[in-house]
Order: sequence, then C-alpha cells, then structure tokens
Amino acid sequence: MRVRGKNYRAVWMEGGDVVVVNQPLLPHKFELLRLKNHKQTAEAIRNMTVRGAGTIGATGAFGLAQAALNISERSMYPFMTRIGKAYALLRDARPTAADLAHAVDRVWFAMADALRTSEGVRPIEAMRRAAVGRANQIAREYVERGESIARVGLKLLRSGSRILTHCNAGWLALVDWGSAPAPIYLAHHKGRKVFVWVDETRPRNQGANLTSWEFLQEGVPHKIIADNAGGLLMQRGLVDLCIVGADRIAANGDVANKIGTYQKAVLAKEHGIPFYVAAPSSTIDPKCPSGAKIPIEERSEEEMHFVWGKDGSKLTKVRVSPERARAVNPAFDITPAKYVTGIITESGVYKPKDIRKAVK
Amino acid sequence: MRVRGKNYRAVWMEGGDVVVVNQPLLPHKFELLRLKNHKQTAEAIRNMTVRGAGTIGATGAFGLAQAALNISERSMYPFMTRIGKAYALLRDARPTAADLAHAVDRVWFAMADALRTSEGVRPIEAMRRAAVGRANQIAREYVERGESIARVGLKLLRSGSRILTHCNAGWLALVDWGSAPAPIYLAHHKGRKVFVWVDETRPRNQGANLTSWEFLQEGVPHKIIADNAGGLLMQRGLVDLCIVGADRIAANGDVANKIGTYQKAVLAKEHGIPFYVAAPSSTIDPKCPSGAKIPIEERSEEEMHFVWGKDGSKLTKVRVSPERARAVNPAFDITPAKYVTGIITESGVYKPKDIRKAVK
Repeated sequence: MRVRGKNYRAVWMEGGDVVVVNQPLLPHKFELLRLKNHKQTAEAIRNMTVRGAGTIGATGAFGLAQAALNISERSMYPFMTRIGKAYALLRDARPTAADLAHAVDRVWFAMADALRTSEGVRPIEAMRRAAVGRANQIAREYVERGESIARVGLKLLRSGSRILTHCNAGWLALVDWGSAPAPIYLAHHKGRKVFVWVDETRPRNQGANLTSWEFLQEGVPHKIIADNAGGLLMQRGLVDLCIVGADRIAANGDVANKIGTYQKAVLAKEHGIPFYVAAPSSTIDPKCPSGAKIPIEERSEEEMHFVWGKDGSKLTKVRVSPERARAVNPAFDITPAKYVTGIITESGVYKPKDIRKAVK
Repeated sequence: MRVRGKNYRAVWMEGGDVVVVNQPLLPHKFELLRLKNHKQTAEAIRNMTVRGAGTIGATGAFGLAQAALNISERSMYPFMTRIGKAYALLRDARPTAADLAHAVDRVWFAMADALRTSEGVRPIEAMRRAAVGRANQIAREYVERGESIARVGLKLLRSGSRILTHCNAGWLALVDWGSAPAPIYLAHHKGRKVFVWVDETRPRNQGANLTSWEFLQEGVPHKIIADNAGGLLMQRGLVDLCIVGADRIAANGDVANKIGTYQKAVLAKEHGIPFYVAAPSSTIDPKCPSGAKIPIEERSEEEMHFVWGKDGSKLTKVRVSPERARAVNPAFDITPAKYVTGIITESGVYKPKDIRKAVK
C-alpha cells in the first residue's frame, strides 16, 4: 500500500538483507530498517519492530532464507549446525505467534526437500535457493490472502457505508492489504465512498497509531474515536457494520482478537449491527474446539502506565497513572461465535459455525 | 478524604480566599491553589482546575461569597453593579454544569433575602454574611449527600465484592466522599475487603489519573484496566457489580454519564451483572423526560490526539495520532434506564422508573 504516494510492503528481501518498516516509530516517523543478518531479524520480531501475524510470519521466513544465504560454511555439517540454530532462534522469537512457527517451518521443510532432491546442484546452494524461493512464496501468499479477503468482503460495502474497526489488521500486519481493512481499501480504490470509525485501541493504540496512519496514506476517510465511544455511535445510528481482524479462530467460530473486540461485538448485537471478522484461513485452528481453550496473553502492566507519543520532535513516553498504582493488561479477548455475523476469509464469508469449511 | 494521611476536601474557603486542589496536576503532583479573588475562582472553574459537578458547584458558591467579601464598595449601587457582574461571570463559567448555576443562584438568592430582611445590620454586610453562610452550607450539603450515598450503597457491598467503576465521581468531584466510590470508601473503612477495577476512562483518563489516586491515598485495593478490558473480566466472572456516577438523570431513569458508561452497562446486562448508578438527587432532572433530550457535549478532538502525563520530572503531553488525523470526542453518553439495575441516591436505591420519587 501507499506511503507518501509510493507502494510499500511491510517486509521484503533485498539480496542478503531483510528490509522492514520500523513499526514502533509510526505514525510519527516512517523509517525502513535494513536487517543485515538473521540475528537482527529475530530481534526485530522479538522486540516487536515488526508486528502482525502475517508480517511476523514473512519476516521469520525471510530471516531463515537470509541465514541460509549468509552462513558462509562450505561443508555440510557446520552449515547444518549453524542453520539449525538460526531455525530455532527465529522460530522461537515470539512464542505465541502461530504464523511465525508455521512460516519458518515451511522454509525449513523446503530446505530439507531441496537437500533430498539436489541432483546436479551443490546441496547447500540448493537449500539456499529453496529457502529464498519459499520465503518469497510465503510473503506472496499473505499478499494474495489479503487481496482475496478484499474481493470477498467488498460485497458487504456500499457507497455511504460507515464501518467501525478495532486495532490494526492492515497491511502493516499482513505484508500488504491486511485483513479487516482489505475490503475497505478495495472499496475505496473502486470509488465507493466508505467511512471508517477507528478505535484508538488502548493500551497500545494500534488504531490511532497504525490504522489511522495507513488510512491517511491511502486517503481512506476516517476518524479516530476513543474505545469508549462506539456504543454511543451505534446508538445514534452512525455505524452500519463492524469489521475486525482475528488472532485465532476456534473450530466452533469463537474468535480471539485484540482486547476490546468482545465489547464491540456485544454492542453490535445489541444494536442489530452486523459484526464481521476478516482473517486469512490460516488463522483458523480446527484443533481448538472453542474460545475457552485459547489462552489469553497477559502483557506487562507498564503498557497501561505509560503512553508513547511525540513531544515536539522527540518520541517519548509519559506516565498516565499514579506512581504506585497497579494495573492488569490482558492483550486479547474471546468473542463467542454467537456475536459474530460472518467471518470473511479468502474463499468466502462463512457463518461462524461453518468456519471449519474454510480450512482447506 | 485522606491525602498522605491528612484529611482534605476538594474546595474550601479561608477568609477571602478560595482554596482548591489543582486537579489537572493529579496524580503526579498534589498542589493546593489559593484563589485570591472571584475572577481567579471563575477561571479555575472555566479551565477545569476544579472539576466534578459538586466541586464545581461549591467552588462557584464560594466564588460569589468571595466576591461579596472582597468587593470593597461601601455604597449600595456600585456594590450591586460589581456583585452582579461577579454573579454572571461565575454562573456562566461552565455553561453545561447544572450544579454550578444552581449553587451560584442559591448564594445570590440568599443575598437578596438578606438585603430584604437586613434590619439592624448594614445591608452590604448582611449580604456578605448570608453569602458566606450559604456557600458553606452548599459545600456541607454536598459532603452530606456523599455520606448518605455511602450509607445507602453500603448494603450492596460485602467482603469480597469486586466492583467495576468508570471515570471519577469521587471526593475530588463532590467536595468530599463522592458518589460512585462513596459506598466503597465506607465499606473499606468498615473493614470489608472490597476490590475495584478502575476503567482508565479515555480520552481524559480520569479513572487512571484521579480515581486510582484517590483509592491509593485511602488504601482501597484496586487495579487500573483499559476501557477495553471490562468485557473480558465480566466474561471470566471477575466482576460482581458495577457502580458509576451520573452527570444527569432524566425523569424516565435514563442516565447521562462519561463516555463509555453505556458500553459497560450493556455488557453488564449481557452478563447478568448488577449495574448501579450512584448520584445525589440534585442530578435528577424531572423536567427532562428522557435521555434523548439530553444534549451530548462534543469536546475538542485535541483531547484524543494528545495524552497528558509525566515524563521524568516534567508534566507534558505527547501526540498519539498521526499529524493530519482527525478524531471525534463525544464527552458523554446516554445509558437507557433498562440497563440500570438501580440508582443509589441519598434517600435509597431506586428502580430507574421510580427515580422521580427520589426528588424532594
């Protein structure tokens, strides 16, 4: 998607470097980071320089391809030792990110296949080529998933639609396009006059910081609202539908997503407003029977006590609570299937109870 | 209530000065401001140095008494001209604050009565005495209302009760005690082990800034949560009841309160959790038939774009949204009566539909 009129993705590979958008600096500064080796790439995943399921997955995949390219051992055993360490480092960079493990595994398996079938090519070279090829394929697949979600979700939007969204499930999170905003981008590109209410999304402000920034760059009309305001807007008839992303979808259609999603889903139902979840089918976990089985990550309470932002020209954080105050900071919540009107995936809009059908 | 172990009120009078807690510095700095004349007092109301219905009302009342004391004219016409201007200035310092107009009017009428009946005393002196007496009475009434609400609401709390509250309707807002926290303070004083979830309350963070600070000073166990988190806590069975304040209550029991109150009320109903509103009966407006007739103040969007807090030793604000982003900032919402379990006033807990009975 566009940044200052030029098209970008959230992560890509250039030679042996992985290039990423430095997301914590947004929206105040747009900066690309050139990660020179797989340790830097793993660190960028760990410290949340990159975030969002798809972007983390693609970054991990590129990281392993990068390791394969950059590990200069010419004989097999030392190469395998070092690439194995790189694999473990990248795969574990964020323990709860299912896409990361999956993407890194896929690159690893591609390398194993290449090793097995490398006739006429030096085995290490065959593994390098396979790793780069698979990593690029993984990134491309995320982009295509976003495009498919855009096309599928487009039918839910018309000129005049006012959409409420929560958190950021945009192109920054899914290499390009994203999930929840993808149909909005496509509708906007096609000239339909859509408008978006963007939940600020405390405590990390991904809505105010990232979603609003993405929409500004693409020219999508929107306004930021406090997470407290959606109910009033619904009551006044100013919200036609909700579209949010998902971190994980259980087999029964329960949805884990950013804290606050559940509140909006209950309010939408109370007002008879359709509540859609948009997510690539990789988000669906058919082995997870229900939301009750999804653990909720409890993050540091420091995220509640301090707010990041720009003070004049410098980025800083300010304390917004009393010095000795305590807080709790659950990062996700579970929206039971009964509050979800439909789940928008690459292959169609599914009723939550039918979501298993979306898994290939 | 206590601050560093010593008892304070949010506003009081000392000679010709009005002394107030400088609320915008909280929770980072506890500072008393000595307002030397009624213009300073009006300005403290206008710029929200003092906030909360009761505290604003009492400050306005003290401001007019202060004007009566400080206007040194000895003859009637010039005194009346100047006190009339002071009356208008104080009464209009915050146009939407019903308590302010009401309190300033009461001091004004007391002065008029004193003028009419001032036998044996110089009329100006009689007016001064009446003004100071009435202003002190008004402040005392707010304190007594909080004490009554505390006693009435106490029966809803037991040892182990986990209460969710929103915004600040504490002693800072009502001279002393407050409304929503008043029963909590009393239960805590009586040794019942209550625990409070304190909504951060974006965009102005009154929960994190003021309610948490009040509770810390009194030793009430609590934790701050994002406004997004209440739904999850209810879903997990961690909330026994909600108690919030009110800015205005319509004759049909609809409640206007800080933005986000409505969302919590809908969620409480969805989970079968009692949702109480605590408010002095002066908050009830029998002439207002329903919430639909209550205008919602739309405040500056700057409150969304910037967050105040402490950076090291200095208080500053940081921008939390992209430079060109727009936001909307409705300050209040309406909670329809059907979501309210009961309204705690000085004289009892009323069903919302019976709230007219609470008006004397």
